[in-house]
Amino acid sequence: MRFFGLVQYDGTNFIGWQVQPEGRSVQAEIEKALSQILNTPIRINGSGRTDAGVHAFGQTFHFDTEKPILDTGRFKYSVNCVLPKDIHILRIEPVADNFHARYDVTSKTYIYSLNTGEYDVFNRHHITQFLRPLDVERMKELTQYFIGEHCFKNFTTKEEDKNDYIRTITEFEIVEINGLITFRIKGSGFMRYMVRLIVGTLIEVGLGKLTKDDILDYLTNDERSVTPYKAPPEGLILVRVEYGEHEDA
Amino acid sequence: MRFFGLVQYDGTNFIGWQVQPEGRSVQAEIEKALSQILNTPIRINGSGRTDAGVHAFGQTFHFDTEKPILDTGRFKYSVNCVLPKDIHILRIEPVADNFHARYDVTSKTYIYSLNTGEYDVFNRHHITQFLRPLDVERMKELTQYFIGEHCFKNFTTKEEDKNDYIRTITEFEIVEINGLITFRIKGSGFMRYMVRLIVGTLIEVGLGKLTKDDILDYLTNDERSVTPYKAPPEGLILVRVEYGEHEDA
Repeated sequence: MRFFGLVQYDGTNFIGWQVQPEGRSVQAEIEKALSQILNTPIRINGSGRTDAGVHAFGQTFHFDTEKPILDTGRFKYSVNCVLPKDIHILRIEPVADNFHARYDVTSKTYIYSLNTGEYDVFNRHHITQFLRPLDVERMKELTQYFIGEHCFKNFTTKEEDKNDYIRTITEFEIVEINGLITFRIKGSGFMRYMVRLIVGTLIEVGLGKLTKDDILDYLTNDERSVTPYKAPPEGLILVRVEYGEHEDA
Repeated sequence: MRFFGLVQYDGTNFIGWQVQPEGRSVQAEIEKALSQILNTPIRINGSGRTDAGVHAFGQTFHFDTEKPILDTGRFKYSVNCVLPKDIHILRIEPVADNFHARYDVTSKTYIYSLNTGEYDVFNRHHITQFLRPLDVERMKELTQYFIGEHCFKNFTTKEEDKNDYIRTITEFEIVEINGLITFRIKGSGFMRYMVRLIVGTLIEVGLGKLTKDDILDYLTNDERSVTPYKAPPEGLILVRVEYGEHEDA
Protein backbone atom coordinates (compact mmCIF):
# COMPACT_ATOMS: atom_id res chain seq x y z
CA MET A 1 0.00 0.00 0.00
CA ARG A 2 1.21 3.49 -0.81
CA PHE A 3 1.28 6.41 1.64
CA PHE A 4 1.72 10.14 1.14
CA GLY A 5 3.73 12.18 3.66
CA LEU A 6 4.00 15.89 4.38
CA VAL A 7 7.03 16.96 6.40
CA GLN A 8 8.58 20.08 7.91
CA TYR A 9 12.29 20.37 8.62
CA ASP A 10 14.93 22.82 9.74
CA GLY A 11 17.73 22.21 7.25
CA THR A 12 20.45 23.89 9.33
CA ASN A 13 22.13 20.70 10.51
CA PHE A 14 21.54 18.52 7.44
CA ILE A 15 23.67 17.83 4.36
CA GLY A 16 20.37 18.14 2.50
CA TRP A 17 17.37 15.98 1.71
CA GLN A 18 19.08 13.18 -0.14
CA VAL A 19 20.92 10.22 1.39
CA GLN A 20 24.66 10.55 0.80
CA PRO A 21 27.58 8.36 1.81
CA GLU A 22 28.57 10.77 4.58
CA GLY A 23 26.56 13.13 6.73
CA ARG A 24 23.09 13.52 8.13
CA SER A 25 20.30 13.64 5.54
CA VAL A 26 16.59 14.34 6.02
CA GLN A 27 15.62 11.38 3.84
CA ALA A 28 17.76 8.93 5.88
CA GLU A 29 16.32 10.19 9.18
CA ILE A 30 12.74 9.77 7.95
CA GLU A 31 13.50 6.32 6.51
CA LYS A 32 15.08 5.28 9.81
CA ALA A 33 12.05 6.45 11.81
CA LEU A 34 9.49 4.81 9.48
CA SER A 35 11.52 1.58 9.42
CA GLN A 36 11.73 1.54 13.20
CA ILE A 37 8.00 2.06 13.74
CA LEU A 38 6.96 -0.36 10.97
CA ASN A 39 9.72 -2.80 11.90
CA THR A 40 10.71 -3.33 8.26
CA PRO A 41 13.03 -1.42 5.90
CA ILE A 42 11.25 1.54 4.28
CA ARG A 43 12.50 3.67 1.40
CA ILE A 44 10.86 7.02 0.65
CA ASN A 45 10.57 9.03 -2.57
CA GLY A 46 10.67 12.79 -2.08
CA SER A 47 9.19 15.46 -4.36
CA GLY A 48 12.79 16.46 -5.05
CA ARG A 49 15.96 17.34 -3.18
CA THR A 50 16.72 20.32 -1.01
CA ASP A 51 20.34 21.31 -0.45
CA ALA A 52 22.36 21.56 2.74
CA GLY A 53 20.99 24.32 5.00
CA VAL A 54 17.73 24.69 3.03
CA HIS A 55 14.48 24.26 4.98
CA ALA A 56 10.96 22.95 4.29
CA PHE A 57 7.57 23.96 5.62
CA GLY A 58 5.91 21.39 3.36
CA GLN A 59 8.17 18.84 1.66
CA THR A 60 6.29 15.78 0.32
CA PHE A 61 7.18 12.12 -0.18
CA HIS A 62 5.61 8.71 -0.68
CA PHE A 63 6.48 5.22 0.48
CA ASP A 64 5.15 1.70 0.09
CA THR A 65 4.61 -0.87 2.79
CA GLU A 66 2.77 -4.15 3.21
CA LYS A 67 2.44 -3.48 6.92
CA PRO A 68 -1.01 -2.25 7.92
CA ILE A 69 -1.26 1.35 9.15
CA LEU A 70 -4.74 1.44 10.62
CA ASP A 71 -4.65 4.74 12.48
CA THR A 72 -2.58 7.27 10.52
CA GLY A 73 -2.89 9.90 13.28
CA ARG A 74 -1.43 7.54 15.84
CA PHE A 75 1.21 6.37 13.35
CA LYS A 76 2.24 9.98 12.67
CA TYR A 77 2.53 10.55 16.42
CA SER A 78 4.76 7.49 16.86
CA VAL A 79 7.01 8.47 13.95
CA ASN A 80 7.38 12.02 15.31
CA CYS A 81 8.37 10.59 18.69
CA VAL A 82 11.40 8.84 17.20
CA LEU A 83 12.33 11.53 14.67
CA PRO A 84 15.00 14.06 15.67
CA LYS A 85 13.81 17.48 16.84
CA ASP A 86 14.55 19.21 13.53
CA ILE A 87 12.12 17.06 11.51
CA HIS A 88 8.37 16.91 12.07
CA ILE A 89 5.82 14.94 10.06
CA LEU A 90 2.67 17.01 9.50
CA ARG A 91 0.59 14.38 7.72
CA ILE A 92 0.66 10.76 6.60
CA GLU A 93 -2.23 9.33 4.63
CA PRO A 94 -3.02 6.53 2.18
CA VAL A 95 -2.71 7.47 -1.48
CA ALA A 96 -3.41 5.80 -4.83
CA ASP A 97 -0.85 3.17 -5.87
CA ASN A 98 -0.02 5.13 -9.02
CA PHE A 99 0.66 8.40 -7.18
CA HIS A 100 4.29 9.51 -7.35
CA ALA A 101 5.61 12.26 -5.08
CA ARG A 102 8.13 13.43 -7.67
CA TYR A 103 6.64 12.73 -11.10
CA ASP A 104 3.16 14.00 -10.27
CA VAL A 105 4.24 17.42 -8.97
CA THR A 106 2.34 20.21 -10.72
CA SER A 107 3.99 23.13 -8.90
CA LYS A 108 6.39 24.05 -6.15
CA THR A 109 6.54 27.27 -4.14
CA TYR A 110 9.65 28.58 -2.40
CA ILE A 111 10.18 31.56 -0.13
CA TYR A 112 13.56 33.24 0.23
CA SER A 113 14.03 35.71 3.11
CA LEU A 114 16.72 38.36 3.28
CA ASN A 115 17.24 40.70 6.22
CA THR A 116 18.85 43.99 5.21
CA GLY A 117 18.13 45.70 8.54
CA GLU A 118 19.91 45.19 11.86
CA TYR A 119 21.48 41.74 12.23
CA ASP A 120 19.05 39.35 13.92
CA VAL A 121 20.54 36.59 16.10
CA PHE A 122 17.22 34.77 16.45
CA ASN A 123 16.53 34.20 12.78
CA ARG A 124 20.09 33.77 11.57
CA HIS A 125 19.47 30.14 10.51
CA HIS A 126 16.24 30.87 8.62
CA ILE A 127 16.74 34.32 7.15
CA THR A 128 19.85 35.37 5.26
CA GLN A 129 21.48 38.30 7.06
CA PHE A 130 22.49 40.62 4.24
CA LEU A 131 23.32 43.95 5.77
CA ARG A 132 23.79 46.09 2.68
CA PRO A 133 21.27 48.49 1.17
CA LEU A 134 19.44 47.15 -1.90
CA ASP A 135 17.35 48.92 -4.54
CA VAL A 136 14.28 46.79 -3.87
CA GLU A 137 12.05 48.68 -6.32
CA ARG A 138 14.44 47.83 -9.16
CA MET A 139 14.50 44.20 -8.05
CA LYS A 140 10.69 44.08 -7.97
CA GLU A 141 10.46 45.49 -11.51
CA LEU A 142 12.70 42.77 -12.91
CA THR A 143 10.84 39.78 -11.41
CA GLN A 144 8.46 39.95 -14.40
CA TYR A 145 11.17 38.80 -16.83
CA PHE A 146 11.44 35.46 -15.05
CA ILE A 147 7.71 34.73 -15.29
CA GLY A 148 6.65 32.37 -18.07
CA GLU A 149 8.44 29.52 -19.86
CA HIS A 150 12.18 30.06 -20.19
CA CYS A 151 15.40 28.15 -20.68
CA PHE A 152 17.02 28.38 -17.24
CA LYS A 153 20.35 26.80 -18.21
CA ASN A 154 22.20 29.80 -16.76
CA PHE A 155 20.31 29.50 -13.49
CA THR A 156 21.43 26.01 -12.50
CA THR A 157 24.62 24.02 -12.07
CA LYS A 158 22.77 20.93 -13.28
CA GLU A 159 24.78 19.05 -15.89
CA GLU A 160 22.82 15.87 -16.47
CA ASP A 161 19.86 15.95 -18.87
CA LYS A 162 21.29 18.93 -20.73
CA ASN A 163 18.45 19.09 -23.19
CA ASP A 164 15.86 19.96 -20.65
CA TYR A 165 16.52 23.31 -19.06
CA ILE A 166 13.02 24.58 -19.79
CA ARG A 167 10.94 25.49 -16.76
CA THR A 168 7.87 27.66 -16.19
CA ILE A 169 7.64 30.26 -13.45
CA THR A 170 4.00 31.12 -12.77
CA GLU A 171 4.35 33.57 -9.88
CA PHE A 172 7.23 35.65 -8.58
CA GLU A 173 6.92 38.53 -6.17
CA ILE A 174 9.10 40.46 -3.78
CA VAL A 175 7.73 42.07 -0.62
CA GLU A 176 9.70 44.30 1.72
CA ILE A 177 8.70 45.15 5.27
CA ASN A 178 11.14 47.03 7.52
CA GLY A 179 14.20 45.79 5.70
CA LEU A 180 13.02 42.18 5.56
CA ILE A 181 12.84 41.26 1.87
CA THR A 182 10.79 38.17 1.01
CA PHE A 183 10.91 36.53 -2.43
CA ARG A 184 8.03 34.14 -3.23
CA ILE A 185 8.46 32.10 -6.38
CA LYS A 186 6.17 29.43 -7.78
CA GLY A 187 6.77 27.28 -10.80
CA SER A 188 6.40 23.93 -12.53
CA GLY A 189 9.71 22.78 -11.11
CA PHE A 190 13.14 24.01 -10.14
CA MET A 191 16.58 22.65 -10.99
CA ARG A 192 19.52 22.48 -8.61
CA TYR A 193 20.38 25.94 -7.16
CA MET A 194 17.82 27.57 -9.49
CA VAL A 195 15.98 29.59 -6.83
CA ARG A 196 19.21 30.68 -5.14
CA LEU A 197 20.78 31.73 -8.45
CA ILE A 198 17.66 33.70 -9.43
CA VAL A 199 17.58 35.39 -6.00
CA GLY A 200 21.34 36.00 -6.17
CA THR A 201 20.97 37.62 -9.59
CA LEU A 202 18.28 39.94 -8.28
CA ILE A 203 20.47 40.81 -5.29
CA GLU A 204 23.15 41.84 -7.80
CA VAL A 205 20.51 43.98 -9.48
CA GLY A 206 19.68 45.52 -6.10
CA LEU A 207 23.37 46.30 -5.59
CA GLY A 208 23.54 47.96 -9.02
CA LYS A 209 25.94 45.33 -10.41
CA LEU A 210 23.52 43.82 -12.95
CA THR A 211 20.85 45.38 -15.16
CA LYS A 212 17.68 44.32 -16.95
CA ASP A 213 19.76 43.61 -20.07
CA ASP A 214 22.02 41.26 -18.15
CA ILE A 215 18.99 39.32 -16.95
CA LEU A 216 17.52 39.08 -20.44
CA ASP A 217 20.91 37.92 -21.67
CA TYR A 218 21.12 35.17 -19.03
CA LEU A 219 17.62 34.05 -19.98
CA THR A 220 18.19 33.96 -23.74
CA ASN A 221 21.83 33.67 -24.81
CA ASP A 222 22.99 30.49 -26.49
CA GLU A 223 26.28 29.89 -24.78
CA ARG A 224 26.10 28.62 -21.25
CA SER A 225 27.29 31.09 -18.63
CA VAL A 226 25.91 30.40 -15.17
CA THR A 227 25.05 33.51 -13.12
CA PRO A 228 27.82 34.37 -10.65
CA TYR A 229 26.06 34.81 -7.32
CA LYS A 230 24.22 32.02 -5.53
CA ALA A 231 22.31 33.35 -2.52
CA PRO A 232 23.19 31.46 0.71
CA PRO A 233 21.07 28.40 1.61
CA GLU A 234 19.72 29.46 5.00
CA GLY A 235 17.20 31.95 3.59
CA LEU A 236 15.49 29.33 1.41
CA ILE A 237 12.34 27.44 2.41
CA LEU A 238 10.34 24.98 0.32
CA VAL A 239 6.86 25.99 1.39
CA ARG A 240 4.48 24.01 -0.77
CA VAL A 241 4.35 21.17 -3.27
CA GLU A 242 1.16 20.78 -5.29
CA TYR A 243 -0.26 17.84 -7.23
CA GLY A 244 -3.31 19.18 -9.08
CA GLU A 245 -6.03 16.81 -7.92
CA HIS A 246 -4.20 15.61 -4.82
CA GLU A 247 -3.89 18.90 -2.94
CA ASP A 248 -1.35 18.91 -0.20
CA ALA A 249 0.30 21.16 2.37
CA MET B 1 35.26 56.36 31.07
CA ARG B 2 32.09 54.32 31.48
CA PHE B 3 30.04 52.89 28.61
CA PHE B 4 26.54 51.41 28.46
CA GLY B 5 25.84 48.42 26.21
CA LEU B 6 22.62 46.87 24.88
CA VAL B 7 22.95 43.32 23.55
CA GLN B 8 20.84 40.60 21.92
CA TYR B 9 21.71 36.93 22.19
CA ASP B 10 20.41 33.50 21.33
CA GLY B 11 21.03 31.57 24.55
CA THR B 12 20.71 28.11 22.98
CA ASN B 13 24.41 27.31 22.92
CA PHE B 14 25.48 29.11 26.09
CA ILE B 15 25.84 27.96 29.69
CA GLY B 16 24.23 31.30 30.52
CA TRP B 17 25.24 34.94 30.90
CA GLN B 18 27.81 34.57 33.64
CA VAL B 19 31.43 33.48 33.26
CA GLN B 20 31.92 30.02 34.74
CA PRO B 21 34.96 27.78 35.00
CA GLU B 22 33.72 25.55 32.17
CA GLY B 23 31.60 26.28 29.13
CA ARG B 24 30.71 29.11 26.81
CA SER B 25 29.19 32.18 28.53
CA VAL B 26 27.73 35.31 26.96
CA GLN B 27 29.66 37.58 29.32
CA ALA B 28 33.01 35.94 28.45
CA GLU B 29 32.36 36.25 24.71
CA ILE B 30 31.50 39.94 25.01
CA GLU B 31 34.53 40.60 27.23
CA LYS B 32 36.76 38.79 24.73
CA ALA B 33 35.44 40.86 21.82
CA LEU B 34 35.69 44.20 23.67
CA SER B 35 39.19 43.33 24.91
CA GLN B 36 40.27 42.41 21.40
CA ILE B 37 39.00 45.61 19.80
CA LEU B 38 40.25 47.89 22.62
CA ASN B 39 43.45 45.87 22.96
CA THR B 40 43.23 45.85 26.75
CA PRO B 41 41.44 43.55 29.21
CA ILE B 42 37.80 44.60 29.69
CA ARG B 43 35.38 43.33 32.33
CA ILE B 44 31.66 43.97 31.94
CA ASN B 45 28.86 44.23 34.52
CA GLY B 46 25.51 42.88 33.33
CA SER B 47 22.06 43.90 34.58
CA GLY B 48 21.86 40.35 35.97
CA ARG B 49 22.33 36.76 34.89
CA THR B 50 20.34 34.72 32.45
CA ASP B 51 20.49 30.92 32.69
CA ALA B 52 21.62 28.35 30.15
CA GLY B 53 19.31 28.33 27.13
CA VAL B 54 17.60 31.63 28.06
CA HIS B 55 17.68 34.41 25.44
CA ALA B 56 17.82 38.19 25.43
CA PHE B 57 16.38 40.79 23.08
CA GLY B 58 17.77 43.56 25.26
CA GLN B 59 20.24 42.62 27.98
CA THR B 60 22.25 45.55 29.33
CA PHE B 61 25.74 45.98 30.77
CA HIS B 62 28.39 48.59 31.48
CA PHE B 63 32.17 48.64 31.32
CA ASP B 64 35.01 51.04 32.02
CA THR B 65 37.96 51.81 29.84
CA GLU B 66 40.66 54.44 29.60
CA LYS B 67 40.94 53.86 25.88
CA PRO B 68 39.16 56.47 23.77
CA ILE B 69 36.08 55.35 21.83
CA LEU B 70 35.50 58.27 19.51
CA ASP B 71 32.95 56.82 17.12
CA THR B 72 30.60 54.49 19.04
CA GLY B 73 28.79 53.41 15.83
CA ARG B 74 32.04 52.28 14.27
CA PHE B 75 33.14 50.68 17.54
CA LYS B 76 29.87 48.74 17.75
CA TYR B 77 30.39 47.56 14.16
CA SER B 78 33.93 46.34 14.95
CA VAL B 79 32.84 44.50 18.09
CA ASN B 80 29.98 42.80 16.21
CA CYS B 81 32.45 41.66 13.55
CA VAL B 82 34.46 39.67 16.08
CA LEU B 83 31.53 38.47 18.21
CA PRO B 84 30.12 35.00 17.47
CA LYS B 85 26.94 34.82 15.37
CA ASP B 86 24.65 34.24 18.36
CA ILE B 87 25.51 37.56 20.06
CA HIS B 88 24.84 40.98 18.57
CA ILE B 89 25.48 44.36 20.19
CA LEU B 90 22.60 46.75 19.48
CA ARG B 91 24.06 49.86 21.12
CA ILE B 92 27.13 51.14 22.91
CA GLU B 93 27.22 54.68 24.28
CA PRO B 94 28.97 56.75 26.94
CA VAL B 95 27.21 56.88 30.29
CA ALA B 96 27.70 58.71 33.60
CA ASP B 97 30.51 57.35 35.76
CA ASN B 98 28.09 56.58 38.58
CA PHE B 99 25.70 54.57 36.38
CA HIS B 100 25.55 50.88 37.29
CA ALA B 101 23.94 48.34 34.94
CA ARG B 102 22.80 46.16 37.84
CA TYR B 103 22.17 48.41 40.83
CA ASP B 104 20.32 51.09 38.86
CA VAL B 105 17.75 48.78 37.26
CA THR B 106 14.21 50.01 37.87
CA SER B 107 12.40 47.21 36.02
CA LYS B 108 12.87 44.15 33.86
CA THR B 109 10.46 42.62 31.38
CA TYR B 110 10.50 38.98 30.31
CA ILE B 111 8.46 37.12 27.72
CA TYR B 112 7.85 33.38 27.93
CA SER B 113 6.44 31.61 24.86
CA LEU B 114 4.70 28.26 24.88
CA ASN B 115 3.43 26.47 21.79
CA THR B 116 0.51 24.15 22.52
CA GLY B 117 -0.37 23.64 18.85
CA GLU B 118 1.43 21.48 16.27
CA TYR B 119 5.14 21.03 17.02
CA ASP B 120 7.18 23.70 15.24
CA VAL B 121 10.70 22.75 14.12
CA PHE B 122 11.64 26.33 13.26
CA ASN B 123 11.02 27.87 16.67
CA ARG B 124 12.02 24.93 18.85
CA HIS B 125 14.96 26.83 20.38
CA HIS B 126 12.95 30.00 21.18
CA ILE B 127 9.48 28.74 22.02
CA THR B 128 8.81 25.89 24.43
CA GLN B 129 6.97 23.11 22.58
CA PHE B 130 4.31 21.99 25.06
CA LEU B 131 1.83 19.90 23.17
CA ARG B 132 -0.85 19.39 25.81
CA PRO B 133 -4.13 21.29 26.12
CA LEU B 134 -4.16 23.99 28.78
CA ASP B 135 -7.02 25.90 30.38
CA VAL B 136 -5.66 29.29 29.36
CA GLU B 137 -8.63 31.25 30.72
CA ARG B 138 -7.97 29.85 34.19
CA MET B 139 -4.27 30.71 33.88
CA LYS B 140 -5.13 34.28 32.82
CA GLU B 141 -7.43 34.74 35.84
CA LEU B 142 -4.69 33.78 38.28
CA THR B 143 -1.99 36.13 36.95
CA GLN B 144 -3.56 38.89 39.11
CA TYR B 145 -2.43 37.20 42.34
CA PHE B 146 1.22 37.66 41.39
CA ILE B 147 0.87 41.38 40.78
CA GLY B 148 2.07 43.64 43.58
CA GLU B 149 4.70 43.22 46.29
CA HIS B 150 5.07 39.65 47.50
CA CYS B 151 7.54 37.36 49.18
CA PHE B 152 8.63 35.10 46.32
CA LYS B 153 10.70 32.68 48.43
CA ASN B 154 8.79 29.73 46.94
CA PHE B 155 9.44 30.95 43.41
CA THR B 156 13.23 30.81 43.45
CA THR B 157 16.02 28.40 44.28
CA LYS B 158 18.08 31.32 45.55
CA GLU B 159 19.66 30.56 48.91
CA GLU B 160 21.95 33.49 49.59
CA ASP B 161 20.51 36.67 51.07
CA LYS B 162 17.59 34.79 52.60
CA ASN B 163 16.04 37.85 54.13
CA ASP B 164 15.27 39.48 50.86
CA TYR B 165 12.74 37.49 48.88
CA ILE B 166 10.48 40.50 48.42
CA ARG B 167 9.90 41.54 44.82
CA THR B 168 7.25 43.62 43.06
CA ILE B 169 5.50 42.48 39.88
CA THR B 170 3.95 45.47 38.12
CA GLU B 171 2.52 43.81 35.00
CA PHE B 172 1.67 40.23 34.13
CA GLU B 173 -0.46 39.17 31.19
CA ILE B 174 -1.07 36.07 29.13
CA VAL B 175 -2.09 36.23 25.48
CA GLU B 176 -3.03 33.22 23.35
CA ILE B 177 -3.14 33.21 19.57
CA ASN B 178 -3.67 29.92 17.74
CA GLY B 179 -2.22 27.79 20.49
CA LEU B 180 0.80 30.06 21.02
CA ILE B 181 0.65 31.23 24.63
CA THR B 182 2.77 34.27 25.50
CA PHE B 183 3.42 35.34 29.10
CA ARG B 184 4.69 38.91 29.56
CA ILE B 185 5.87 39.78 33.06
CA LYS B 186 7.39 43.01 34.29
CA GLY B 187 8.76 43.71 37.74
CA SER B 188 11.31 45.43 39.92
CA GLY B 189 13.61 42.44 39.68
CA PHE B 190 13.59 38.68 39.43
CA MET B 191 15.52 36.06 41.39
CA ARG B 192 17.04 32.92 39.96
CA TYR B 193 14.43 30.75 38.15
CA MET B 194 11.65 33.09 39.36
CA VAL B 195 10.01 33.63 35.95
CA ARG B 196 10.27 29.97 35.01
CA LEU B 197 8.82 28.84 38.35
CA ILE B 198 5.92 31.31 38.05
CA VAL B 199 5.23 30.19 34.46
CA GLY B 200 5.59 26.54 35.49
CA THR B 201 3.09 27.04 38.31
CA LEU B 202 0.59 28.58 35.92
CA ILE B 203 1.12 25.68 33.50
CA GLU B 204 0.19 23.34 36.38
CA VAL B 205 -2.93 25.48 36.84
CA GLY B 206 -3.69 25.10 33.13
CA LEU B 207 -3.33 21.34 33.47
CA GLY B 208 -5.74 21.33 36.43
CA LYS B 209 -3.05 20.19 38.90
CA LEU B 210 -2.93 23.39 40.96
CA THR B 211 -5.64 25.83 42.04
CA LYS B 212 -5.93 29.44 43.11
CA ASP B 213 -5.56 28.35 46.74
CA ASP B 214 -2.28 26.60 45.99
CA ILE B 215 -0.95 29.80 44.43
CA LEU B 216 -2.02 31.92 47.37
CA ASP B 217 -0.39 29.38 49.65
CA TYR B 218 2.92 29.50 47.75
CA LEU B 219 2.83 33.30 47.96
CA THR B 220 2.04 33.53 51.65
CA ASN B 221 2.95 30.45 53.70
CA ASP B 222 5.75 30.70 56.20
CA GLU B 223 7.61 27.50 55.58
CA ARG B 224 9.68 27.37 52.45
CA SER B 225 8.37 24.95 49.80
CA VAL B 226 9.57 25.80 46.30
CA THR B 227 7.02 25.22 43.53
CA PRO B 228 7.56 21.90 41.77
CA TYR B 229 7.59 22.74 38.06
CA LYS B 230 10.20 24.98 36.43
CA ALA B 231 9.26 25.75 32.81
CA PRO B 232 12.11 24.89 30.36
CA PRO B 233 14.64 27.65 29.56
CA GLU B 234 14.20 27.90 25.78
CA GLY B 235 10.86 29.74 25.96
CA LEU B 236 12.27 32.57 28.08
CA ILE B 237 13.50 35.90 26.69
CA LEU B 238 14.73 38.93 28.63
CA VAL B 239 13.19 41.65 26.49
CA ARG B 240 13.84 44.91 28.29
CA VAL B 241 15.79 46.40 31.18
CA GLU B 242 14.79 49.89 32.32
CA TYR B 243 16.67 52.50 34.35
CA GLY B 244 14.17 55.25 35.06
CA GLU B 245 15.98 58.33 33.76
CA HIS B 246 18.38 56.42 31.54
CA GLU B 247 15.89 54.73 29.17
CA ASP B 248 17.32 51.80 27.30
CA ALA B 249 16.26 49.12 24.80
